[in-house]
Formats: sequence, structure tokens, C-alpha cells
Amino acid sequence: MATLCKPSVILPDYVVTQDQMIELMERFYADNPNLERVVKMVRNTQIDKRHFVRPLEESIVHQGFEEQNNIYAREAKKLSKQAAQEALENAQLTTDDIDMIIVTSCTGFLMPSLTAYLVNELGLPSTTRQVPIAQLGCAAGSSAINRAHDFCLAYGNVNVLIVSVELCSLCFQPTDGHIGPMLSSALFGDGVSACVMRGLGGTGFKLEANATFGLPNTEHYIAYDVKNTGFHFRLDKEILNSIEPTTPAMKGFVNQQGENISKLDFYIFHTGGRKILNEIVKNLSIDEQLINESRASLAESGNLASVVVFDVLKRTFENNRPKHNDKGFLAAFGPGFIAEMSIGSWSEA
Amino acid sequence: MATLCKPSVILPDYVVTQDQMIELMERFYADNPNLERVVKMVRNTQIDKRHFVRPLEESIVHQGFEEQNNIYAREAKKLSKQAAQEALENAQLTTDDIDMIIVTSCTGFLMPSLTAYLVNELGLPSTTRQVPIAQLGCAAGSSAINRAHDFCLAYGNVNVLIVSVELCSLCFQPTDGHIGPMLSSALFGDGVSACVMRGLGGTGFKLEANATFGLPNTEHYIAYDVKNTGFHFRLDKEILNSIEPTTPAMKGFVNQQGENISKLDFYIFHTGGRKILNEIVKNLSIDEQLINESRASLAESGNLASVVVFDVLKRTFENNRPKHNDKGFLAAFGPGFIAEMSIGSWSEA
Repeated sequence: MATLCKPSVILPDYVVTQDQMIELMERFYADNPNLERVVKMVRNTQIDKRHFVRPLEESIVHQGFEEQNNIYAREAKKLSKQAAQEALENAQLTTDDIDMIIVTSCTGFLMPSLTAYLVNELGLPSTTRQVPIAQLGCAAGSSAINRAHDFCLAYGNVNVLIVSVELCSLCFQPTDGHIGPMLSSALFGDGVSACVMRGLGGTGFKLEANATFGLPNTEHYIAYDVKNTGFHFRLDKEILNSIEPTTPAMKGFVNQQGENISKLDFYIFHTGGRKILNEIVKNLSIDEQLINESRASLAESGNLASVVVFDVLKRTFENNRPKHNDKGFLAAFGPGFIAEMSIGSWSEA
Repeated sequence: MATLCKPSVILPDYVVTQDQMIELMERFYADNPNLERVVKMVRNTQIDKRHFVRPLEESIVHQGFEEQNNIYAREAKKLSKQAAQEALENAQLTTDDIDMIIVTSCTGFLMPSLTAYLVNELGLPSTTRQVPIAQLGCAAGSSAINRAHDFCLAYGNVNVLIVSVELCSLCFQPTDGHIGPMLSSALFGDGVSACVMRGLGGTGFKLEANATFGLPNTEHYIAYDVKNTGFHFRLDKEILNSIEPTTPAMKGFVNQQGENISKLDFYIFHTGGRKILNEIVKNLSIDEQLINESRASLAESGNLASVVVFDVLKRTFENNRPKHNDKGFLAAFGPGFIAEMSIGSWSEA
């Protein structure tokens, strides 16, 4: 059985509080007719702070797609290597034990991808399968978990290193003055995680089944506009209506495994934002306290895109550790619109 | 056992012959000191023609990353849907039978990716797993085959639709006047393929094992420079030395399956170019005639990046069809530098 061991999560050095962000927005968007409305929305995000790879004043200057991507490459390489080494230690494995590396990242573009860099830099076996995922946005972390699970099911005694790198501050587009982009610039934070899935042994979230659900004809909910200045994040307000129609698929999947989604012992949810979490609690009839770690992740680091599920899992290890054999559900949502989900149990090896 | 059924391959409408290309280069790069040398190299490529999504005169005008990517989106959507429908027919399956869709493409960037578009447009089940691969370049087709194989090994009776979209002409960068980019603009062509891997049944290449080999510290062999004008292809001449050090890994993998790489019945090789194919024949001690279909693919459409292995497989179905139980080897090479390979046998269901 495949077990997700304790993740490592690195939040970069530069802290931006909500107050600092609002002060900056009031200066930066002084003449923008949407300012007042957006500031009100930002106050409601329940995000206390975020972490950026550069100081806030530098982060708001767009240096062109090439230079933004160069900064991405430099920071992504530094932070991902550090995170990966810590994740290997957490899993009590060495580099020689790794059979596959998956890297998820939608906030920069590299070819060769970080998978090749990390194979070389960490000294992973030359036979390591490389799976870079760039286009699944916030769902990519959960998707990586599911593909790693499939790989473990196929081969048994194999181990997968999953590295997620999201430097969202490098996708800030100063010229985007609409409400959506303005708000998202106050929602997303920078973070890097790494996590090992062990095919045999290990302590953590032991996967039993995984599934994908795509909500038909909702490609416009979450999207990038690709421009000469790079990736421009576009969020449709309809996204707030995404959880209700996705609920039957989540319930059905859990039922197929002989469980009731409202009555599990722990939950690892992606934190799309405060309202998305509210929708989850309401539609899945979950005890609010059981999503504390998702709320805390959002408050302390903003939405970290594909990193979130690993941050919530790490917090679950540290603050709210389930008992052996407790049942849990993991899900993230992203562009498509898709939900990537898995069910399993807690395992104290 | 997982079987790759007959692929569909679509080559776009606009044909560019080698003579047309050379005539254009002599005009376009009239003052470039590398011109004479590059023209000589182009004459040696053994590429007779390629296919582009736009007329040649339009293809040499760069309209900015945003507009190039818009053209990519439009053409990719049109051609990939058509290819996918044909591949489903070839595999004698319907959309309801598909459990996973993998899309490989490194010549444009979309989020949501083409996986979401195709799930909606084809009417694939909402539970279809989506795996977009953007960063494995020419190796991505073979990588997709290997990940599809893993998925079939994990679940048995499942089917995977693999769609590969490479519109290389949209990555032409008129300002790149170095030898590498000039040559590559004469090497790569546009093409789209689709192929179904059936977990049970099906006629074609039945996979038995797959593997990856990464040549250490060779990330500079094949790379994109990401600039404000998009992806700039960079090829190091050291790439010509890549096959020899990769040979022990390929031989070893085939040996592990109880076979001799020099004595198999058929081969599906990526066509990096004439010299790479020569290196393969020499290092693996293969009968030159057994790579005829790779040579023909290169001559008739140029290097189609991740599409190539599917084009060679299709040609193998049509022109050089193996006998039931014949043993074969499939491999592609790409940025990393990595080789993605598989071994299997021909199956007439």
C-alpha cells in the first residue's frame, strides 16, 4: 500500500501581512474604480500573511516574462532541492530508493523541467521516471499524489518523490486592474513542498483509492491568459458555485469505498479560499473543526496552489495527528474545472 | 496486457519542401555569416518536406508570444479533436471506454490544458484522469506511453487516450540567427497524433516493460530559453554524442527482459535527425532496414517532436507490419537528456 509520508514545506523569507498588502493596493491602485470593493474583499479573505521570494516592493515590479522566469528558475531550484532533501529524511529513505519524481508547478516554465535538475542535483538514480506537471494549477498536488498512487499500485515496492513549487508572486501582473486579478494578487502566496510516497512501509496517509472528477464545460472558471508578459491568472466568479455540483462525485467516490464522506476522521482539503472552504463544509456536511488545518494554512500562507495539500498534510502530522487506521479524504480543485481526490487511512508504521 | 493500437496522425495543410526552405533561408538570412554552413547542413538533413499550420510566408513572421499562442490554441484544438476521434475508431472503442487522457505538447502553453478541452469536446467520462505533459519535449510521446502502461498495470481493464500536439512552426524565432536555431527551424515540423492504449484486447504493440534513463548533467543538450517572445529552442551540438553513453542503459533494459537489443524484430525510434538515427544503428548494431519507418517519417514530415513515435508506429502498422508475437523496442529521446523506452511484442487480436 502506498503511504504519503510527512511533507516538508518551505515558505520563502519575505513576509507580507494583510495590512501591508492593503496599504500597498491603496497606493498602487489609487485611481482604480474597483479599489474600494477589492480592499473590502481582501479584508474578508482571512489571510493574515503570505511569504514571497522577494520583498514586496520588488514583487510589484514586472521585469518582463524572461526575467520573471529567470527569477523563478533560480528560486525554484534552490528551494526545491532543500525541500526534497528534508522530505527524503522524513520518509527515512535515501536518494537511491526513489523510482519516480513528479514536479508540479504552474508559476514558471522550464524545459528541461525541474525533474531533470533534481535528478542531477540530488543524485537520484539515472533510471528515475520523470513526470513534470505544469498545467493542472491548484489540482496538481493532488493529481501528483494520485499518479504516484497508480505507480505504486503497478509496481508495489517503489517510492515516488513529489516536489511542488509555486512562486505565485512572480505571476503578479501590475497592468491587470480588473477585480479578479486584483483579488488573486492578494490571495496567492509562494511556497515549495516535497513529499515522498512509499510503496511499502512509512508513516502517514495510506492511500486506498483515487479519482478525478471534471465538471463539464467549466474551462473558463480558472484559466491563464498567456501574453507577452507571461501568465495572467483569470478567475471567474462562477468558481464559487463549483463545489455544489462536484459534491455528488465526491460523495459517490467515498461511498464506493464503503464510507460516508461526512463521517470520516480527517480531511486534507485544498484551500481555494475562505468561501470555497465554507462551501465544502456546507455541502459535505463536515464538522468545521475538521478543516482547521486548511483554514490555518490559508491564514498563514495564502493559497499556495499545488503546494496546499502538502502544507495541510504537514500540519495534520504536527497538530492534529490522526490515530492509526483513522479514515481520511484528500481533495484539491483546479483548472478544468477538476477535482482530484483520494481516500485512505492513517498509518503509524 | 496493455496494447498500443493504431495511431492517427494528422499533418497540417501547408507543405514546405527542402528547396523552398533553403530558398527562404537564403533570402531571410542573406547577411548572416552562418548562412552557407547552415544551408549545407539543411541539405544533409534528409528531410524532403514538412507540414505547417500556416503558409511558409506567414510562418516566418513572429506575431508576439500571445498571438503565436492563440494560433496554437486554435489549431491544436481543431486537429487534436479530429485525431482523437480517429484513434478511438482505430481501437474500436468509444469515448465511454476511456479512463485517462494524456496530452503531450511543448510548442504552446494552455491552462486549462487540452486534456480538459478534449474531455468536454469529445464527451469523455467526467471521471477521466487528466495528465498534461508540457516539459518533456521529444521524449514526451514515449513517456506518455510508459505512464499509460503503468496505469494499465495498476488497474487492468482500463483504456488511455494519448494525444500529442506539436506545432513547431509556431516556435520559429526570426531573431535567432545562431547556427542551432537556424538549423532547428529547418528540422522540426507540425503534426498531431492520437493513439489509444487498451488495457485488454487490441491489435498492435503490446507493452511488456518500460524504463527511463537520464544521462547525468546534460540539461544543456536540449533546452528552451523562455523569453518575452516565447520559447526559444536551444540545441547543443553535444547532442550528437548522446546515444553512445545511453546505449548501455538501453541494452541493459532489453537484457533484463531476456532479449538482445540488436536482434529484435521491429523498432519504433524517435527521429532526432539523420545523425541520431545513424548513431542508433551503429551503437545498437541494428539492421539499417529495420529503421526504415523512422527514416521515412523524418523525410516526409521532419522531426515532429513527441508525435514522432506515433507516426513511426502508424507507418509500422501500414508498411512493415510485424507478425504476431514479434518482439519490438520503442524509444524516444528528449530534454534532460533522457531516453524513454519500452519493450513488447506485436499482437494481432
